[in-house]
Amino acid sequence: MASDEGAYRQPSIDVAGLSALLDGRYRDVRQLVRTNLAQHHELLLDAETMGRDEFRDRVRDVVVEIAATGQTALGLPTEFGGGGDVGASVAAFETMAFGDLSTLVKIGVQFGLFGGAIQQLGTETHHKTYLPGAADGSLMGCFAMTESGHGSNVQALGTTATYDPATEEFVIRTPDEASRKDYIGNAARHAQLAVVFAQLVIGEESHGVHAFVVPIRDGEQVLPGVRVADCGLKMGLNGVDNGRLWFDDVRVPRTALLNRFADVAADGTYSSPIESVNKRFFTMLGTLVLGRVSVGGAGVNAAKVALTIAVDYANRRRQFASSDDQPESLLLDYGQHQRRLLPLLARTYALHAAQEVLVDRLSAVFDGDGTDEEARRALESRAAGTKALGTWHATRTIQECREACGGAGYIAKNRFAALKADTDVFTTFEGDNTVLIQLVAKGLLTGYSSEFSDLDQLGMVRFVASMAVDSVIERTSVHKLFERVKDLLPGGDEWSQEAGLLDPNYQQAMLRFREEHLVSGVARRLKSGVDDGMEPGEVFSRVQDHVIATGRAHVERLVLDAFIEKVAALPDGDNKVALGLLVDLHALSVIEEDRAWFMEHGRLTAQRSKAITAEINDLCRKLRPLAGDLVAAFAVPEEVLRAEELRSW
Amino acid sequence: MASDEGAYRQPSIDVAGLSALLDGRYRDVRQLVRTNLAQHHELLLDAETMGRDEFRDRVRDVVVEIAATGQTALGLPTEFGGGGDVGASVAAFETMAFGDLSTLVKIGVQFGLFGGAIQQLGTETHHKTYLPGAADGSLMGCFAMTESGHGSNVQALGTTATYDPATEEFVIRTPDEASRKDYIGNAARHAQLAVVFAQLVIGEESHGVHAFVVPIRDGEQVLPGVRVADCGLKMGLNGVDNGRLWFDDVRVPRTALLNRFADVAADGTYSSPIESVNKRFFTMLGTLVLGRVSVGGAGVNAAKVALTIAVDYANRRRQFASSDDQPESLLLDYGQHQRRLLPLLARTYALHAAQEVLVDRLSAVFDGDGTDEEARRALESRAAGTKALGTWHATRTIQECREACGGAGYIAKNRFAALKADTDVFTTFEGDNTVLIQLVAKGLLTGYSSEFSDLDQLGMVRFVASMAVDSVIERTSVHKLFERVKDLLPGGDEWSQEAGLLDPNYQQAMLRFREEHLVSGVARRLKSGVDDGMEPGEVFSRVQDHVIATGRAHVERLVLDAFIEKVAALPDGDNKVALGLLVDLHALSVIEEDRAWFMEHGRLTAQRSKAITAEINDLCRKLRPLAGDLVAAFAVPEEVLRAEELRSW
Repeated sequence: MASDEGAYRQPSIDVAGLSALLDGRYRDVRQLVRTNLAQHHELLLDAETMGRDEFRDRVRDVVVEIAATGQTALGLPTEFGGGGDVGASVAAFETMAFGDLSTLVKIGVQFGLFGGAIQQLGTETHHKTYLPGAADGSLMGCFAMTESGHGSNVQALGTTATYDPATEEFVIRTPDEASRKDYIGNAARHAQLAVVFAQLVIGEESHGVHAFVVPIRDGEQVLPGVRVADCGLKMGLNGVDNGRLWFDDVRVPRTALLNRFADVAADGTYSSPIESVNKRFFTMLGTLVLGRVSVGGAGVNAAKVALTIAVDYANRRRQFASSDDQPESLLLDYGQHQRRLLPLLARTYALHAAQEVLVDRLSAVFDGDGTDEEARRALESRAAGTKALGTWHATRTIQECREACGGAGYIAKNRFAALKADTDVFTTFEGDNTVLIQLVAKGLLTGYSSEFSDLDQLGMVRFVASMAVDSVIERTSVHKLFERVKDLLPGGDEWSQEAGLLDPNYQQAMLRFREEHLVSGVARRLKSGVDDGMEPGEVFSRVQDHVIATGRAHVERLVLDAFIEKVAALPDGDNKVALGLLVDLHALSVIEEDRAWFMEHGRLTAQRSKAITAEINDLCRKLRPLAGDLVAAFAVPEEVLRAEELRSW
Repeated sequence: MASDEGAYRQPSIDVAGLSALLDGRYRDVRQLVRTNLAQHHELLLDAETMGRDEFRDRVRDVVVEIAATGQTALGLPTEFGGGGDVGASVAAFETMAFGDLSTLVKIGVQFGLFGGAIQQLGTETHHKTYLPGAADGSLMGCFAMTESGHGSNVQALGTTATYDPATEEFVIRTPDEASRKDYIGNAARHAQLAVVFAQLVIGEESHGVHAFVVPIRDGEQVLPGVRVADCGLKMGLNGVDNGRLWFDDVRVPRTALLNRFADVAADGTYSSPIESVNKRFFTMLGTLVLGRVSVGGAGVNAAKVALTIAVDYANRRRQFASSDDQPESLLLDYGQHQRRLLPLLARTYALHAAQEVLVDRLSAVFDGDGTDEEARRALESRAAGTKALGTWHATRTIQECREACGGAGYIAKNRFAALKADTDVFTTFEGDNTVLIQLVAKGLLTGYSSEFSDLDQLGMVRFVASMAVDSVIERTSVHKLFERVKDLLPGGDEWSQEAGLLDPNYQQAMLRFREEHLVSGVARRLKSGVDDGMEPGEVFSRVQDHVIATGRAHVERLVLDAFIEKVAALPDGDNKVALGLLVDLHALSVIEEDRAWFMEHGRLTAQRSKAITAEINDLCRKLRPLAGDLVAAFAVPEEVLRAEELRSW
């Protein structure tokens, strides 16, 4: 943020105030979670010492105990024991990522995926029958969507649910090995019910993917016609019982169809308020948005744990003498060490702010009447993009922090082993990050307009190719964006070369310019590929890196906007000054990381590019004395930090 | 490599020939290792199913069995049961990285560190007493250098060995908690002996760090005065029993000193053929070079396993339909997927070539009479740099390959779980990578000249500051390098803007220019910092990112040179053409990754920078059909690939 260099005075952080600011409107919920985490902190040790099945049962028991505190069902309707507040439910979930992550994921599977599917895809009878048990954990369920042969392409699932009008039943079948359900959490050991996604077939006609409630166990006994296999040891999250499921003509009553968006009458007549098969499919898939918002937030909070430990260690640990008559320097006094950790710390704050905005949008859409389809699709896109950035950030940050703690970072009790192993799958579950970023780009290129929401990659290529590039730009929200860029650049191109690097208008204008330029470039390339007679799949493959860069640029811009706006709204004071330094560090780091692109596109001179690097180093030096307080404000409970030795130098 | 675009014909790879080329002069040794790996492949499963102590004992037993095949002691002298061929020993070690990595590290600890220390720091009596047992594994030992409080700064170790002339014994003592030996492989369970690094004290005088043979166990019984603690569960490598050691005035005879470089007479008179304390220290530390060469090579080979699985999977697995009437595309047909995997594949080949050169240099130095100190220091620098690049590459490649396999990559039996967890510590053990890269830069800045070899960071700052920048450049090998750059750029600056991107002279000249520019820049900044009166530690901290960039640039140049030279020397044919594509992809990827720097320093125009990106995409498309053969040539034994399901789509 703009600051008068001459008047710069090192701020002093009010840690409690900053912590309250981060906790925001869900402070009480987050504090409840902290209390629960502290109470069950020994789970982190159990994960290392217990056998697999023992630890799975232990995690299940703790999940049920925590459910009794009201923490886990905050998103379910109040009349069924829930809290009726989706935002609070996400806040609780992401805070839970400070602790054992098997417990976190088990909670996500039970209350988010299973409970959420019943709530959002089912109707009153389903709610009454299943939600009370789902909410208190007495009825364990699983969410059986993914198949071995169909990960990201859910529309191509192979499992079938064929309606038999004679008995008014659906017959659930796994036709081949590629169609077995795979990686399903809760399936290997605990789930009594499965919400199974399958192609609905009536007579000769397929109506696309629908969800059905299918009992799979009675107590510990697997039911006839169902086959279950354990996915076995995983890299991490071994407290979650992931399994595979096969269905051999399992019959369920007609009421097993979760029928909010489509129904089958006794005689086999199909009806749905949503006409298009594709649109119906994407409406149902929209229920995944909650999972994505939750996982992205969890990634950011896992990164907070890693940074808390690594910054604290770097503030205590000495290495090499800085001069012959002085003690060895603290690790964090080294420029390189600051460079490794502090931009990641700034990005963590930025992603936290972006997550807050996302959760607000989520609440608005969920509390609304659901008629604003464009808002819903914009939410889905934002959730997809924030999830991808948040989870990639977790992987990168945890790795960097582990290396920054040297050999000690490799010892399990110092937390990084589990943090790394458990979060690793975040980048590919609840939607593969690369696929999600493409989804963001697709939304951008089609302006979230309803008639194009259900397009796949090739549909997108054809759609874009069918229009003039200008009209693509005009249709998209990017057009409006770029108008704003022009407003922000009063003097035109020269201005952006002269503006202060710490001017937020400059920082935002840079990211907006990049986004607009990438969108129009990708539209042009898609169009000219098709115009040149290339096959759409080939066109897509060739332009794919450009598509992904576009999606990323869009989300990066949203993140920076969120962070800048959050800090700008704060009352003046030292905390605002400190967060302003983080905004600058984050914004300039994002620009620096892609400075080659900005130079290639005439937005940075070589000299200015070097000035950005120098400014980042300067910001790191200013933030260095604040780093300890900045991680303390995350308020990760002492009990779950462990790492006693790392933290006692 | 330069190729006539018009005449380009897709080559067809002779896999067996390529594999033989990669195996090189140590083909027989590598085949022996492959046989041993296949025979003991069930270790990979044991790592997942056995309890910790059971698996540790299992690994020890296998190590002893493998020792009996002659594989593990290739580097020890023939008269004591070894092979007398250090190059073969490295080849065997790095190939072993295809399998269970606990076994690999246990081998490294026993034969490389423990056996190697006895051999290189000891004299005839030590050799006769210990080497036969070290070589056949009947005498297990450990290498007790690292202390909790002193990781990278070995010169500051706290353990003392005080000479008592009355009894002609050394008294080994751990003075405080920071000086306990830590992370010591083999210490927690199996080692009978420890080679302990300690400050030698005679009377009031300290003579610096020396190595002593100290018995720590008799069978399973820990000896009096020694305290052992288990480091406990680690992120990976749990088949290795890492431990902590404390010594409470443990007495060992005068002959326990490994006295090749220094000795203590019965009356306490100290003598050494090496006068300077620092120089003596670094001579002893030179024994670490073998470990670094070995670990770097192991990292590259672990990356080969990950790439073999991920490329094979991407060649089988389909995702989304490429057009309505066609089957889903193969993952590797996607441009983004090619971008993710193929540059990493090219870099793996490049690092393999660089490792070959390094091993040749190692053999030359070890087989020589040891008098060419500059050659030895250049080797140490090269080993440090190659280790850092090879192990960072392993971390990055394994992560990318895991994500490229989606959820399946998270299941332990698909190999990535162990690969990731076990290799993670490679970046920080046997020298922290960041510290090693600084070592490279130091060597570069001081021209590997003997009188400066023992300088620490601050010594380096003072040394550089004491000279004119021109003389720094002139002293260094970089000067000669840059002369060669000028030769390579016949038309001067314009030439490099016009040369073909696929001209190896161009590629090499770019990396040489970067290196020379960074060296002179860093010298200038160090000097002006000191001239401005800044404290040397502060100067170093501020310039540290520049120092590290310099070290990396140097090693990147060495890697590219090695790869280009290797391929240039091949007979004409399809394999040469295919490897030529890999050279181009690697060289341009390295330039692309740092294209911002090249633009900032006037070596790339925006247009040419974009052309490099386009060329990389084109190279990826050309390499795509060859990718399967290129990983097959690594010849990772089927038995250790596991991942049966991933590999049977």
